[in-house]
Amino acid sequence: MALFTHAEYRARLEKTKQRMAAAEIEVLIVADPANMNYLTGYDGWSFYVPQVVIVALDAAEPVWIGRGMDANGARQTTYLQEANICGYSDDHVQSEVKHPMNFVADEIRRRGWARRSIGVEMDAYYFSARCFAVLQKDLPEADFKDGNLLVAWVRVVKSDREIAYMQQAGKIMERVMQTAIDTVAPGIRECDAVAEIYRAQMRGTGDFGGDYPAIVPMMPTGEKTATPHLTWTDEPYGNETAVNLELAACRHRYHSPLARTMYLGSRPPVKLTDTADIVVEGLHAALEAVKPGVLCEAVELTWRKVIARAGLEKESRIGYSMGLNYPPDWGEHTASLRAGDKTALQPNMTFHMILGMWMDDWGFECSESFRVTATGHETFADFPRKLFIKN
Amino acid sequence: MALFTHAEYRARLEKTKQRMAAAEIEVLIVADPANMNYLTGYDGWSFYVPQVVIVALDAAEPVWIGRGMDANGARQTTYLQEANICGYSDDHVQSEVKHPMNFVADEIRRRGWARRSIGVEMDAYYFSARCFAVLQKDLPEADFKDGNLLVAWVRVVKSDREIAYMQQAGKIMERVMQTAIDTVAPGIRECDAVAEIYRAQMRGTGDFGGDYPAIVPMMPTGEKTATPHLTWTDEPYGNETAVNLELAACRHRYHSPLARTMYLGSRPPVKLTDTADIVVEGLHAALEAVKPGVLCEAVELTWRKVIARAGLEKESRIGYSMGLNYPPDWGEHTASLRAGDKTALQPNMTFHMILGMWMDDWGFECSESFRVTATGHETFADFPRKLFIKN
Repeated sequence: MALFTHAEYRARLEKTKQRMAAAEIEVLIVADPANMNYLTGYDGWSFYVPQVVIVALDAAEPVWIGRGMDANGARQTTYLQEANICGYSDDHVQSEVKHPMNFVADEIRRRGWARRSIGVEMDAYYFSARCFAVLQKDLPEADFKDGNLLVAWVRVVKSDREIAYMQQAGKIMERVMQTAIDTVAPGIRECDAVAEIYRAQMRGTGDFGGDYPAIVPMMPTGEKTATPHLTWTDEPYGNETAVNLELAACRHRYHSPLARTMYLGSRPPVKLTDTADIVVEGLHAALEAVKPGVLCEAVELTWRKVIARAGLEKESRIGYSMGLNYPPDWGEHTASLRAGDKTALQPNMTFHMILGMWMDDWGFECSESFRVTATGHETFADFPRKLFIKN
Repeated sequence: MALFTHAEYRARLEKTKQRMAAAEIEVLIVADPANMNYLTGYDGWSFYVPQVVIVALDAAEPVWIGRGMDANGARQTTYLQEANICGYSDDHVQSEVKHPMNFVADEIRRRGWARRSIGVEMDAYYFSARCFAVLQKDLPEADFKDGNLLVAWVRVVKSDREIAYMQQAGKIMERVMQTAIDTVAPGIRECDAVAEIYRAQMRGTGDFGGDYPAIVPMMPTGEKTATPHLTWTDEPYGNETAVNLELAACRHRYHSPLARTMYLGSRPPVKLTDTADIVVEGLHAALEAVKPGVLCEAVELTWRKVIARAGLEKESRIGYSMGLNYPPDWGEHTASLRAGDKTALQPNMTFHMILGMWMDDWGFECSESFRVTATGHETFADFPRKLFIKN
């Protein structure tokens, strides 16, 4: 069974074209792998070489361009006709001679689009400075415009089928977090706990398996809890120490992240338990503030008021839109739950609300992934919100 | 224990500065996470926001610039002084208001480097078109030059300590591949086999644990073996079908990849067994051609002559330099084993030689990771080279 109906792909393409027309972009070069997947279904770990999907206002179908050996992957995962799957030869790959964007420019010219207004995703991960420089050189008559996040903003509101995959990811996530809490213990090597977490992420449930999340398990412990993005070692977990667990589960590239904090030992510091209490209260309050029409910044303000009562403040945002994605990030880079973000919530927007307080030598974090419903919110996973203390 | 001595980091920096001087680059902005790690030790999953290491010819130490919440990570993983660890505020993150490269440009100006010749890694994965555009706008007096792969070429020849980590990865790799061959079987869900492989990758050995490889397990089966980069499903493996296994193990970000092919069933097609025989013969011959002074293209030619005798040809390269890396690729994008590559082999260069023949509806692949020795080569893993047939 295809992951989505052809009608759903057509609707995505139509919404993309409407935004293109509004931005006066006639041809959009999409390099972000999540956007490529969203528009065509293409799914492969091939984004380590330049590849794009091109949407033109006057073309019925997008065009996939990638490495020759990946064209069969496009034939198997997209709905595109053969004429719209174009593979470049291998002498373009990591080569001094030719760049894949030379091929993309040639294909644009061949299709009569060389003089159009051409949108590019200026800040997409895999659209390098050279990618753009080659396009500018090879297409001097084109009028380049910034189409960054254009498709990502179409992705912000999910379809029911997309929500179903995120709900499945949420079910997997419950097992993943339980595995983490069952496994992490004093004397257990960090890498061995990570091993069980990965296993749970991929096994999924008896009904459906897991896909690789866009970010690896984040499980800092001890002094590393003072910073969120260090990965594991092969040292054993200590005693009387905290462990932050920021994990995710993924289904058909749709994510449901979840964060919790453990304390290993019998004497959790009062500052940690106090922080846990106030963060969990703030998480609850912020989630209760979610409903259609509310602005993203208002959700953050609710949280900020709660922690201010405890004399705490947090500079960084408390959440972001997420869903379909590839490494290095499951976030969509569109709406953020932070001061100044005027995005109004709509049903089936999906966020990861992550409340992390990272102090100089310890940290506490707790999160939920949820969708906006007609009247409020619905989390994807059902897991206790508390500091998990393990003696 | 630090992963490398301070002396080793200094030597890396000196070699980088020599290449910078030769390229008339006074200040180099390094955005590639592997290059950042190589020069400073920085290791974190934070490359989903712009971050850089800056090397200036007239500065004794590099400067790390990243997100504020990751500065503690830099303090914990690098040898840099506090003055050379600079975190930007969170309103730079995925924001319409400020871009992290505004902060980088300010820091360059503050240090008196705004009028220098500044190298940038034009084709690095996380150096987007916008990153470069912001730098150009904010530093109009600078003379920008392409410093792409400048550090990567320093990385090509490994130190003994780096080799030791790759050898450890090779030991893990043997267990990972054995786990794959033991687990993959008709009726087993692909995701469940992947789960055991991930578990083996992270557990490592009793002496040392594993790190996350830069590429997920690639295990196409059935018609998907006709293309190399599709990932797994939750369907059970079939019978009378081939499975390609392209896997890796990783130790402290140093990789040792390995590929093998299985056939599930009792009647492997003659074209598959014949191809396996000739590919294994070609792999052996190409590895025997490896020694210091031999050109990369000569190694590939040895392979090409072997398969030509069987009437086969392969367009794509047969290997590439690899070692330290982050997603999305463990390859270094420098030397490739392919026609036209005149790089002369030197001791402690390290390659993944991967011989994949992907036909329209089936494929066979077999690979080795190895280092060049004083007299030949040494593989990192010891694993039989053959088609694994499982009834």
